[in-house]
Amino acid sequence: MNINAARLQHYFEVSSEIGKIGETGMCRPAHSALEKQMFEHAKGWMEAAGLTVRIDSFGNLIGRLTGKNPDAPILMTGSHLDTQPYGGRFDGIAGVLCAIEAVCTIAEKGIVPETSIDVIAFADEESWRFNKGLFGSRGILGKLEEGELQRKDKDGITREQALLDFGCDITKFNDDKYAPGSIRCFIELHIEQGPVLDKTNKPIGIVSGIAGPLLLSLTLKGMAGHAGSVPMPLRKDALLGAAKVVVAVNEIASQFTPAPTVGTVGTLNVFPSSRNIIPEAVSMTMEFRDIDMERRNTCERQLKEAIAEITQTHALTYELTVDTDIKSSYCADWIKDTIRASCTDLGLDAPELVSGPFHDALVMSEACDYGMIFVRCKDGISHNPLEYASYEDLALGSEVLYQTILKIVG
Amino acid sequence: MNINAARLQHYFEVSSEIGKIGETGMCRPAHSALEKQMFEHAKGWMEAAGLTVRIDSFGNLIGRLTGKNPDAPILMTGSHLDTQPYGGRFDGIAGVLCAIEAVCTIAEKGIVPETSIDVIAFADEESWRFNKGLFGSRGILGKLEEGELQRKDKDGITREQALLDFGCDITKFNDDKYAPGSIRCFIELHIEQGPVLDKTNKPIGIVSGIAGPLLLSLTLKGMAGHAGSVPMPLRKDALLGAAKVVVAVNEIASQFTPAPTVGTVGTLNVFPSSRNIIPEAVSMTMEFRDIDMERRNTCERQLKEAIAEITQTHALTYELTVDTDIKSSYCADWIKDTIRASCTDLGLDAPELVSGPFHDALVMSEACDYGMIFVRCKDGISHNPLEYASYEDLALGSEVLYQTILKIVG
Repeated sequence: MNINAARLQHYFEVSSEIGKIGETGMCRPAHSALEKQMFEHAKGWMEAAGLTVRIDSFGNLIGRLTGKNPDAPILMTGSHLDTQPYGGRFDGIAGVLCAIEAVCTIAEKGIVPETSIDVIAFADEESWRFNKGLFGSRGILGKLEEGELQRKDKDGITREQALLDFGCDITKFNDDKYAPGSIRCFIELHIEQGPVLDKTNKPIGIVSGIAGPLLLSLTLKGMAGHAGSVPMPLRKDALLGAAKVVVAVNEIASQFTPAPTVGTVGTLNVFPSSRNIIPEAVSMTMEFRDIDMERRNTCERQLKEAIAEITQTHALTYELTVDTDIKSSYCADWIKDTIRASCTDLGLDAPELVSGPFHDALVMSEACDYGMIFVRCKDGISHNPLEYASYEDLALGSEVLYQTILKIVG
Repeated sequence: MNINAARLQHYFEVSSEIGKIGETGMCRPAHSALEKQMFEHAKGWMEAAGLTVRIDSFGNLIGRLTGKNPDAPILMTGSHLDTQPYGGRFDGIAGVLCAIEAVCTIAEKGIVPETSIDVIAFADEESWRFNKGLFGSRGILGKLEEGELQRKDKDGITREQALLDFGCDITKFNDDKYAPGSIRCFIELHIEQGPVLDKTNKPIGIVSGIAGPLLLSLTLKGMAGHAGSVPMPLRKDALLGAAKVVVAVNEIASQFTPAPTVGTVGTLNVFPSSRNIIPEAVSMTMEFRDIDMERRNTCERQLKEAIAEITQTHALTYELTVDTDIKSSYCADWIKDTIRASCTDLGLDAPELVSGPFHDALVMSEACDYGMIFVRCKDGISHNPLEYASYEDLALGSEVLYQTILKIVG
């Protein structure tokens, strides 16, 4: 093995303390002081190996190992350092720390790659703080949307304010975009976040593609009233309508089982939230994901029909908005082949599998070829403090990444 | 008319500014600085007419007009001055201001009643701040429950702390209880909070009884996981279970329509509340109310069966607790007759009707005979900023109360 497994483990141990909740949980919000603290460590590790490191105006952390042809399209690798509010120690950060270890090993060996290599920690992949994520990857590709900086977190802080507080100069967005063609390929290592590798007892998997996420927000509005006096038939109960939508999302996604179609309502807020008041309004977020866009489009159509019917039945008004709508995307065959060759060199039998969760790689796929390396995670548990990947598997993943990078730009 | 309608209107106009939200909304939480400010005004109005006023250790405001026989069982009248978090200008306060006007009129006329009259504004009738209400009325009857002072509001402030901040000496609870037999009767004026009087075009109604509320809290626990990767059949989605409980509460209460049975889920909180995480836990409050206890018991039984089945289907665990369980209660015939006689004297045809909402009178009914006067409210809307009762109707209500009190202790 070329990479330093002990150093990689040290990186994880340091990182797991920054935003720790409970024994094994993590909460490191995007653009937060905790993320900044994490960035400082990662920056130090990269600089120690001679990489040139900067934080860009989107809040991305980028370390560059300059290649022989500094103007040639680069290889980019990385993931994100923000976490879910009640997340684990490996989602996102695995892809950054394994990339740091792989690229720093290249640098320390005195290898000068053909093209430059950027190790990147994308800002706000997770999306929960402002209900819209993949911010850093969309940022460098010029795919931010109008009004996006005015989105607020639950404390009323806008994205703009959070970026300013983070030290970002938001007038520099244009300077920090990567020009079309300037990125040759993107490679992301990530824990699987699903049960396939664990069940088949394989430490490493090769991603075939990423399911396309459709993320929606719905607000339902009815009429507040005294819970003791408004007769049942006269009610306009927003929570009752919302509950039926929750059930509908589940039924719609479940109709395709055993296909990997999934549908989830992750947040639901009731107004005015008093036990004696019939709920006047509910806001909720919903999503469908699928690698098969036809199935996903069916889900979307059926959901819209269900919402129209439910709101009519309960005399509610509603507003449905699309927060994110990204098509599913398949990995480049040549990158999959290169990863497979690296696995074979290491004696690993790495199965190919679809990623249900999306990643910054899904955004990057719109700008360049991409590939992903999955590392086994226990019981497929993720977005949960119980999330677990072994240091042995992570070291293997970092080594596969190291060899894959060298095969491409070595 | 004996009472001073203009002065009563003035009381309402002053009160409607204290905790005002928007144009006509109110938020005056129990034991808050806003309620204290309201108390100061009410205290001044009562003292101006010669009543002796105090705030007791439960946070009740009590003004006494001493009678000829100060040791005889008293007549008590009043309601509450706290409001819903998104409530109106008349719920509760109507019963306090109309009582102040009625009793101050008696005092100003130099009438010394046979027994003393206590005008009371009960602390925390509304229940939303600590998810348990009727605090002041239960307090003076010695019906507080163990651990109740440790209940927290959404900011983590305990009831105990809130009472201390309000200036209450919580070591004096025993001194402030009313001894058994010391209250002869309780009369509460309240806006109807339902549509009956408005629909039949009657300003005043006579309450026949109050529906018994069963207030429950439910927590459901499943398993957090990545919304993109956990296959639908493997999920333990707490929000999906909660949604089915919301639908069940509605269906169970609706089966008895057109009976006045009602069932409501007023609050529902999701944890961890991230759009990408399958909800791990949900806490919610639920209630059933009915004047017919047999129907209400059927609702409770069916709900328990539904929760057991839903949680089994979705592999959830749950905890169901009873926060409040009060039997329905009928008003005393002699008080209804006295109110009816007062209405007749005023040329009013006052229909008799059940109260779906509960009131402090329901607690007081366990200690003495009680009666209630309802004042028409527009479209039956209450617990809503749109809540409206006319000053004319309120003045009529206050006059009916005045005459009723004099018939009993004059």
